[in-house]
Amino acid sequence: MQRRFSRAALLAASPLLAAVPFLAAPAQAAPTEGSGVAWEIVEGLTTEIGARLAGSPEEGQARLWAEAKLNALGFQNVKIEPFKTLAWKRGEERAKLTAPYTQTLAIAALGLSAPTPAKGIQAEMVYFPTLDALKAAPEGSLKGKVAFVDHAMRAAQDGSGYGPYGDVRRRGPSIASQKGAAAIVIRSAGTDSHRNPHTGVTVFAKDVAAIPAGAVSNPDADLIARIAKRGKPMKIDLTLLGKPFPDAPSGNVIADLPGRDPSLPKIVLACHLDSWDLATGAIDDASGCGIVTAAALAAQKDGKTLRTIRVLWAGNEEMGVTGGGSKAYAEMHGNEPHAVAMESDFGADKVWQFRLTLAESNKALGEKIKAALWPMGIVHHDGAATGGADVSGIIARQELAVVDLGQDGMHYFDLHHTPDDTLDKVDPAALQQNVDAWTAVLKVIANEPGEIARVPGSKGEG
Amino acid sequence: MQRRFSRAALLAASPLLAAVPFLAAPAQAAPTEGSGVAWEIVEGLTTEIGARLAGSPEEGQARLWAEAKLNALGFQNVKIEPFKTLAWKRGEERAKLTAPYTQTLAIAALGLSAPTPAKGIQAEMVYFPTLDALKAAPEGSLKGKVAFVDHAMRAAQDGSGYGPYGDVRRRGPSIASQKGAAAIVIRSAGTDSHRNPHTGVTVFAKDVAAIPAGAVSNPDADLIARIAKRGKPMKIDLTLLGKPFPDAPSGNVIADLPGRDPSLPKIVLACHLDSWDLATGAIDDASGCGIVTAAALAAQKDGKTLRTIRVLWAGNEEMGVTGGGSKAYAEMHGNEPHAVAMESDFGADKVWQFRLTLAESNKALGEKIKAALWPMGIVHHDGAATGGADVSGIIARQELAVVDLGQDGMHYFDLHHTPDDTLDKVDPAALQQNVDAWTAVLKVIANEPGEIARVPGSKGEG
Repeated sequence: MQRRFSRAALLAASPLLAAVPFLAAPAQAAPTEGSGVAWEIVEGLTTEIGARLAGSPEEGQARLWAEAKLNALGFQNVKIEPFKTLAWKRGEERAKLTAPYTQTLAIAALGLSAPTPAKGIQAEMVYFPTLDALKAAPEGSLKGKVAFVDHAMRAAQDGSGYGPYGDVRRRGPSIASQKGAAAIVIRSAGTDSHRNPHTGVTVFAKDVAAIPAGAVSNPDADLIARIAKRGKPMKIDLTLLGKPFPDAPSGNVIADLPGRDPSLPKIVLACHLDSWDLATGAIDDASGCGIVTAAALAAQKDGKTLRTIRVLWAGNEEMGVTGGGSKAYAEMHGNEPHAVAMESDFGADKVWQFRLTLAESNKALGEKIKAALWPMGIVHHDGAATGGADVSGIIARQELAVVDLGQDGMHYFDLHHTPDDTLDKVDPAALQQNVDAWTAVLKVIANEPGEIARVPGSKGEG
Repeated sequence: MQRRFSRAALLAASPLLAAVPFLAAPAQAAPTEGSGVAWEIVEGLTTEIGARLAGSPEEGQARLWAEAKLNALGFQNVKIEPFKTLAWKRGEERAKLTAPYTQTLAIAALGLSAPTPAKGIQAEMVYFPTLDALKAAPEGSLKGKVAFVDHAMRAAQDGSGYGPYGDVRRRGPSIASQKGAAAIVIRSAGTDSHRNPHTGVTVFAKDVAAIPAGAVSNPDADLIARIAKRGKPMKIDLTLLGKPFPDAPSGNVIADLPGRDPSLPKIVLACHLDSWDLATGAIDDASGCGIVTAAALAAQKDGKTLRTIRVLWAGNEEMGVTGGGSKAYAEMHGNEPHAVAMESDFGADKVWQFRLTLAESNKALGEKIKAALWPMGIVHHDGAATGGADVSGIIARQELAVVDLGQDGMHYFDLHHTPDDTLDKVDPAALQQNVDAWTAVLKVIANEPGEIARVPGSKGEG
């Protein structure tokens, strides 16, 4: 880098500038600051707690932080509700190609994957362009080898690429294990082009042995693809020392804004408090907690709402495959009347559409919601509203009505589950737009005097 | 993250799509492929060699790769010219705040900094908003403490922010050492907002003890600034185990396209072959090597140029403060006649301006260069052309004429010296535009029959 060129160029071009001392320069490149309850929550959680992996001491600290914050904001009946959960903790991790060329790879182990031996695995790596190609590999053909699985995830307005492409992460390792693979490496389920691996949970099928599994960043996957194209056999040296921990301590935090008639079925709004461990969980999911909590309060501005609004900051959403905050909430509160469940777990980009799961008898309620969102340019989309992972338990148990506020997903998977999930990625104006949309909906549903009926078949994401 | 939401949304919204197997999906998200000599060099060097730190075995492999490539491309007198150099090798590195909050930081040690003890340093960290604030600290006031120095680097069209803001990296550690600091951490000299630290060399003044020095990513520096703003004392646990290696093996690679009259003073075009170690040196500086080499060949398209064109792929540009490729080239070739020196070491973004260092007697030559670049929209800027680090030695020794082709610097410092310096960041069209601009200039200067005079005072970046 021609650093002296730049200094010379600066001095040659701007003699006046050369004489101005840099004392006057701004102290730091301050990112856009926000204000208001939602921003305070996102800023506070990411700055004062940071990474808060499910089942970890940090997630426990986050619960205490949440309890204090919700009390300070004026919520009632603020409770930490502990539960045990299957968790997983990251260990040392590193990977490098050793043939045909030596190349260090940016890698992150997947949640619930098994550790390699302490000295790692050194083995041939076999390239599969897609998950289907891996599925087609003969049984046992990968014995003693490492599978590499590629894919072509693209950004989509509604984030729907995550479903199919995310399967490489969720199911690829189990399939590779069935083929006898010693380990699997995948291209990250992400839409960015940075040296950030995207972690996330993987699920081994019943009776399938867990194997080491990691995701490399997109530029590293591009590199592997180029090398595969050269047709030369690849070798990898892979060390992933993370491992599962059963019966780890997790918990939910719940808090209420009691309505004028607290006996009416309540509105429950969820987000998740745990985060992945590579960063501070700003978009995933401190933003969600900021949004639902700020909106619950804002809905009270013209006076208490008729119905109670409860916020649920759930534990272990990220790895709760055998039982996380959703299951615990449904077990503990499944006998209390709920009317509607909603969840915010898709970052802080703007809301642009909504979906409804409402009974036939609540058509008029649906029209009121539509009218409340219309001035914000938020449009109705057909199809069931499903809430999210944290309310899937209570929705299924009570066949609840659901409202989904769908956010712009074009950039979410650039950051999702990476080291880049930090506060500077949150646009305060977009965050506030979410709060406004949620507030508009809450003013309608939390003040609905008539019955909000069950919806037979409503089962959330399940 | 509502993964099941997305799957459900996908299935609910698009039943047809749900039925289509993903066998038909493209195998991988292929980045834009380029073609031609410049692209081959960038793609080849980054894929087959990758990271090639000055003085390392990989830099040695890169020299062999370069020798083979330049021979294959038809260059003559291809030579590896070894020299010894002060080098530096990264070790384990990690950092985390331990008070008032626990936060892991993304950090990279600076080149030529000293190692911490194996168990790291645990100390109070003092926040300085600018380098000037650090300079103003009383002597000895930082004893046993770690200094954190912030700054506010902004992207600029000509990259000129790097001069002043880069001083935090180049000089901050030396100043902190003089204040008695146990170590120094700085905000990366970069314009991005990713968890990528920007490394780079630091220079301790004569008789000033080297101390451990690292740069944290911008989001981590933002976090530290927010915590400092809360007014609570910070503590850091810092381990940086990289250390200097004197007399490491490095070398230059030179290659010629002999002119019709090889006795005339030659044109020398430089780039640097070494890279930083966090990534594959795609923009810094495989692109430069691709550009100058492709242009040298393209200038021969209408027949051999009059003058010899030499390419110099220099060793140890990044840390050659006490003598790298530039010094070695000037010592070995300082008695050969040269006419003009040029360097490409600013990535692959488009050329938009040029500068000239030419003698009064070569005004007409300057007009020919201007006319050659005018159709490409490349405009003349006043001020001296200074070449670059790799040709600074030969320029100063022979008071050479220089032509600088200045590139768009708005994105260069997003990637510079980070883990993100990978092939996918190179736009093949912009790379080719560079080749075209260089070719246009070479056709003029390499075919100039009249004297290209020395320029008293021409001294490159020195």
